[in-house]
Amino acid sequence: MERAKAAHRQENSQGFVDPDILAKIRVGKAYVAAKYGFRNHWYPAFFSHELPENGFMTAQLLGEKILLKRIDGKVYAIRDQCLHRGVPLSRKPECYTRDTISCWYHGFTYRFSDGLLCDIVGADESAVIGKKRIKTYPVEEAKGLVFVFVGDVDYPVPPLAHDVPPKFLDADMAIRGQKRTVNANWRIGAENGFDSTHIFIHKNSILISDNDLALPLGLLPKGRFAFEKLEEVDGPKGVFDNFGPDVIKPIFTGTVEGEKVLEGTPHGRNMLPHNISMWLPCALRVDPWPDPSLTQFEWYVPIDGKQHIYIQTLGRRVANEGEEKQFAMEFERRWRPVALDGFNNDDVWAREATEDFYADDKGWLKEQLFEPDGNIIEWRKLASKHNRGIQGPEHIG
Amino acid sequence: MERAKAAHRQENSQGFVDPDILAKIRVGKAYVAAKYGFRNHWYPAFFSHELPENGFMTAQLLGEKILLKRIDGKVYAIRDQCLHRGVPLSRKPECYTRDTISCWYHGFTYRFSDGLLCDIVGADESAVIGKKRIKTYPVEEAKGLVFVFVGDVDYPVPPLAHDVPPKFLDADMAIRGQKRTVNANWRIGAENGFDSTHIFIHKNSILISDNDLALPLGLLPKGRFAFEKLEEVDGPKGVFDNFGPDVIKPIFTGTVEGEKVLEGTPHGRNMLPHNISMWLPCALRVDPWPDPSLTQFEWYVPIDGKQHIYIQTLGRRVANEGEEKQFAMEFERRWRPVALDGFNNDDVWAREATEDFYADDKGWLKEQLFEPDGNIIEWRKLASKHNRGIQGPEHIG
Amino acid sequence: MERAKAAHRQENSQGFVDPDILAKIRVGKAYVAAKYGFRNHWYPAFFSHELPENGFMTAQLLGEKILLKRIDGKVYAIRDQCLHRGVPLSRKPECYTRDTISCWYHGFTYRFSDGLLCDIVGADESAVIGKKRIKTYPVEEAKGLVFVFVGDVDYPVPPLAHDVPPKFLDADMAIRGQKRTVNANWRIGAENGFDSTHIFIHKNSILISDNDLALPLGLLPKGRFAFEKLEEVDGPKGVFDNFGPDVIKPIFTGTVEGEKVLEGTPHGRNMLPHNISMWLPCALRVDPWPDPSLTQFEWYVPIDGKQHIYIQTLGRRVANEGEEKQFAMEFERRWRPVALDGFNNDDVWAREATEDFYADDKGWLKEQLFEPDGNIIEWRKLASKHNRGIQGPEHIG
Repeated sequence: MERAKAAHRQENSQGFVDPDILAKIRVGKAYVAAKYGFRNHWYPAFFSHELPENGFMTAQLLGEKILLKRIDGKVYAIRDQCLHRGVPLSRKPECYTRDTISCWYHGFTYRFSDGLLCDIVGADESAVIGKKRIKTYPVEEAKGLVFVFVGDVDYPVPPLAHDVPPKFLDADMAIRGQKRTVNANWRIGAENGFDSTHIFIHKNSILISDNDLALPLGLLPKGRFAFEKLEEVDGPKGVFDNFGPDVIKPIFTGTVEGEKVLEGTPHGRNMLPHNISMWLPCALRVDPWPDPSLTQFEWYVPIDGKQHIYIQTLGRRVANEGEEKQFAMEFERRWRPVALDGFNNDDVWAREATEDFYADDKGWLKEQLFEPDGNIIEWRKLASKHNRGIQGPEHIG
Repeated sequence: MERAKAAHRQENSQGFVDPDILAKIRVGKAYVAAKYGFRNHWYPAFFSHELPENGFMTAQLLGEKILLKRIDGKVYAIRDQCLHRGVPLSRKPECYTRDTISCWYHGFTYRFSDGLLCDIVGADESAVIGKKRIKTYPVEEAKGLVFVFVGDVDYPVPPLAHDVPPKFLDADMAIRGQKRTVNANWRIGAENGFDSTHIFIHKNSILISDNDLALPLGLLPKGRFAFEKLEEVDGPKGVFDNFGPDVIKPIFTGTVEGEKVLEGTPHGRNMLPHNISMWLPCALRVDPWPDPSLTQFEWYVPIDGKQHIYIQTLGRRVANEGEEKQFAMEFERRWRPVALDGFNNDDVWAREATEDFYADDKGWLKEQLFEPDGNIIEWRKLASKHNRGIQGPEHIG
Repeated sequence: MERAKAAHRQENSQGFVDPDILAKIRVGKAYVAAKYGFRNHWYPAFFSHELPENGFMTAQLLGEKILLKRIDGKVYAIRDQCLHRGVPLSRKPECYTRDTISCWYHGFTYRFSDGLLCDIVGADESAVIGKKRIKTYPVEEAKGLVFVFVGDVDYPVPPLAHDVPPKFLDADMAIRGQKRTVNANWRIGAENGFDSTHIFIHKNSILISDNDLALPLGLLPKGRFAFEKLEEVDGPKGVFDNFGPDVIKPIFTGTVEGEKVLEGTPHGRNMLPHNISMWLPCALRVDPWPDPSLTQFEWYVPIDGKQHIYIQTLGRRVANEGEEKQFAMEFERRWRPVALDGFNNDDVWAREATEDFYADDKGWLKEQLFEPDGNIIEWRKLASKHNRGIQGPEHIG
């Protein structure tokens, strides 16, 4: 017992949550523990076009270092760490056949398809050949994104559709996007995105005038009916903000001590969005946004305990290839610079400014949430209940 | 008990002193524990001219991050951390009325005067409005310096005069100065300043010839009468070096194994100082210095466990505004470059070179003090006895 | 007991090995514990020509900071830390006599020969004078290298010949070399050098064509006769790879899944080396190498837990001064650029790429060695058995 505590403390030093802190968490304990994310879920790692045929990519997901290669169009993923001496294969990738990689140090050679140590170049009579496997990761591509299943070797891999927001995979939904690295824990990212009153930081965004948005300074929910959950057994698990006029009130006028000091844009043509939802493992859907014709889907993918990959995508329903091309052009000319950069840059800035307070995990005890954070509480509960495992130090390194 | 130890160990990782080390300290235990300084004392943070009307300043004192604003001439100080999500208000200060500040993230609005959460811009019906307070800090200005009382909310605030060296606040004492950041614990600063034999490092200073100083290579105290204490109940607490000719012996000739190797400047016109004293919480007075007409007052204000603000001031008694102007000009032309920079640069260098040895707190056990360090021992005892509290991890973050 | 564990944990934070990890090590436990090296051994610190008469050098060996000075041709070494306040003497070395050094801070003066605190310049009547000693280190020079004995004050100092590979000190052996700092633990250095299958990384080295080497892609030992030990009581302790044709098989053809993918250089004129051996405390001998006329001797000297000094030397037997000069010139023109840089750069790169895996000491539990690593296992056992002590946190700081 004492040894176990000591071991856990040792791990803490690598960025995991202290059990003394977890013991004090009343709501969403598993979520607070999941500093490195939830295990046994699908995560988008990068865009398909970033990995050409026969090319390599590396990704760090939930602290695990992964090497990916595209072979005959299909993407394969293996642990980026030789079994023998633990060196990263990616430091100098040597492929003597298309579907294997040989470690640059001693020639240990693995098959991408199943991870088998199929040969050792330079020691071809070794008894370990054919007996060991490097970890492989299931990979799927959808909507131009490469998804990796980060989980246990024997875990029954669920359909990708269970781990992305509804509508994202719809056949007529065209998707465009970009990614960047944010210096904040993935949960800081998720809660910034789902937080309904953080629109205060966007009050001067160029997107407002560019798309004539009616943007309030804040939103006040009226009681517990403001939030809804989707928890079907065979589908994605998520929490919705209910934006119905009976349950949420937009605030356009800012007052301080009785004095009117600020005004939102109540007369904008576009009153958006109507529907915001957060999905396991770490995806947000804002619908419609930033235009009545668009939906934003975005992910906050844990790199480690301190950083996340911010995958931003916009979707539009298209009827044919012409409409898809039109959307692609519009995305590059308008929505990427004005929305994904211009508007969301405020969010990236806010997340990085919040990170310090939560970095030592004590922020979860010291924060003082208020009424509009009710949806965040529901998200923490849902994530704690439906996640498929917590990433721990034993999975990394 | 076991949990308490674990918690303490956790704190250590943030730079506080290990209880196993403290248990071995025989003299001045509270002082060794006070790595982040003594709580419930007044500290100078910066100079008044650095904060104009309606301007902002931030200061980190004893590990606490503080935001200051000058309103109608008076300086107010609040914790630089929103109650809601812990972000620094100073990252983007938004003031919609002159005496409030609104958090840039969700519009939480605090009054500078009493810290009350008086509004939330964008969520004006929230039940938490008017119910919570951000921490405020008492502020006083004196002699061109802004002093902040860093302590508990309910602590009875003592007069500023109890926390500065005698003479500093005298009506006819004109004060000029400068500040800089030093990469050493505040106690390394204090002990360097008060240390009577460290003058060895100044043996080639330009101040010696510039002001014709009679500077010995070292000073040897003769027994325990060499030190005096001032411990009045209603006044500042300090330790004096007694520089009387019966109790201290200046050494002008340096010898190594019987051979004369070095000489001080025994024939200088100005034999200074006569009186050196160290005061709670962290102030030194050198009187007179660096000239018979001047007194140096300086502070080593803890920023955190590894750095201090070095506030250097010189005082001269003046009879009228003309004399004050004359002093101000002389300070800029001569004393700032020759004394506060030229001479004290040696001290800054020495402190930063000493920091490594004490950084892991084991230096307090390994140091080997000798006779002239008696005044430092007395200072450690006095500080351990009369401080009003030790800054701990529970006060920070 | 609990306190002892806490203390040990404290030390871990400074880079020593966690006892929970050590408890799981089955072979070579002392070696795994020796993250900072083996105590009470001779280590080369730098080359003689780097320290001229009356000059200073500093070296960090096994975490200990050492100041060296050459006086009348002889090199003396003392701890680079004043007894009084722990500052590094080397920060501003002040020598008022040739065989003493005075601390720049308070004039504490030490004799290089025996470490005695023989004077305090500026406090010449102090009672501590003549009563204390700073730590001194035995020093020997041989073959143009300065060796320092890093160990306990009362440890009976063994002959240097016990701590260097056989042949190195032979009278007719001329030695030339260079040193550099490598960002890897010293054992990662040692095991890279001694590892017989790591030649895979050198397959494209310019040395192969430059010296027409017959270099296989790997080597497979045939059973336990492939390794031999030298463990004489009064001599160096080491492990040999036995390169006899009956016990080791060179592999020139690389295959992956039955397909020939790579070829070594089986037709090179020079089939080298015949004899590779590893010696306590941290020296490798490769004989002959990189030419039939040369032997490589090299050391992986611990700086701390994360870095080592890589001392590379080549030796050639010479009959007279002319031959020695010839070798010196040949070394500079050919062997330094082609072998010590060109070839060994691959090794430095490989060590730094391996360091991450072992940095938290868990790599020793996770590594999966194979047959050709048998010599490394033998080295770990020999080092665990014959070392004269393990460097611990109590020796440093």
